[in-house]
Amino acid sequence: MAPFPLPEPMRRALDLARIAADWGEVPVGAVIVKDGAVIAEGHNRPRESHDPTAHAEIVAMRMAAAKLGNERLDGCDLYVTLEPCAMCAGAIAHARIARLYYGADDPKGGAVVHGPRLFAQPTVHHRPEIYDGIGESEAAGLLRAFFAARRSNGS
Amino acid sequence: MAPFPLPEPMRRALDLARIAADWGEVPVGAVIVKDGAVIAEGHNRPRESHDPTAHAEIVAMRMAAAKLGNERLDGCDLYVTLEPCAMCAGAIAHARIARLYYGADDPKGGAVVHGPRLFAQPTVHHRPEIYDGIGESEAAGLLRAFFAARRSNGS
Repeated sequence: MAPFPLPEPMRRALDLARIAADWGEVPVGAVIVKDGAVIAEGHNRPRESHDPTAHAEIVAMRMAAAKLGNERLDGCDLYVTLEPCAMCAGAIAHARIARLYYGADDPKGGAVVHGPRLFAQPTVHHRPEIYDGIGESEAAGLLRAFFAARRSNGS
Repeated sequence: MAPFPLPEPMRRALDLARIAADWGEVPVGAVIVKDGAVIAEGHNRPRESHDPTAHAEIVAMRMAAAKLGNERLDGCDLYVTLEPCAMCAGAIAHARIARLYYGADDPKGGAVVHGPRLFAQPTVHHRPEIYDGIGESEAAGLLRAFFAARRSNGS
């Protein structure tokens, strides 16, 4: 049986994760959609850009906010290949992202269904709708391959 | 009795918080020190810069990382006038900030001793040394005055 087709923004996010890997960055990609159109995208790039905040989600949200001329991304959907960390989940709340679609779980660094479970905290000021496991196997495969290659390189 | 003098970087962070208030931004300032010298600073500016991530700490950490040419801020101290939120605390962990000095507590948005208490999570990958209450009364006073003025303006 053919697998259920991935939403187009998640396919693009997976392509961006592959670009990150080509750059030697942890392969995570993100895409932001508003009113059915892609308005911003990004991939993980903290090393290349010398920026500890340059996770895929942050890169994409900053681009979207700059484009819209508003620090609030009301009505925007964020597609990201990996469960967001605390930094990114916090930024998602600040940006008022409407819907969050993510791929692979991240038991070590994730902050949505792992660790601090940020959107379940009583103090969180905004909770997006959350859809997980979208493109999970592809996203997790990219991460596994990246870390396996890095271990075998000893880097 | 004269109050214990504030560390110079926290005095500068309070000045930056006042600049933020002049800009109509929530008054929070941050300064980064390495080897005894200020290498970066920032104030809250999400509205002006159309960037949901532009909290004082993030602005300062991005500047410091760009200056050092490294996404890791090993050996750097961060002074900030308000308890960091989850986004900023996550970024502090990613950046490997050595020591965090902060002023006022933030029971609503803070993520250090409130809410998700990020650095107490077993999954956090880096914990700075933490010193709180440095310049607390000045920092809290600026925030109270800002929000009182905003309420009386009805904005």
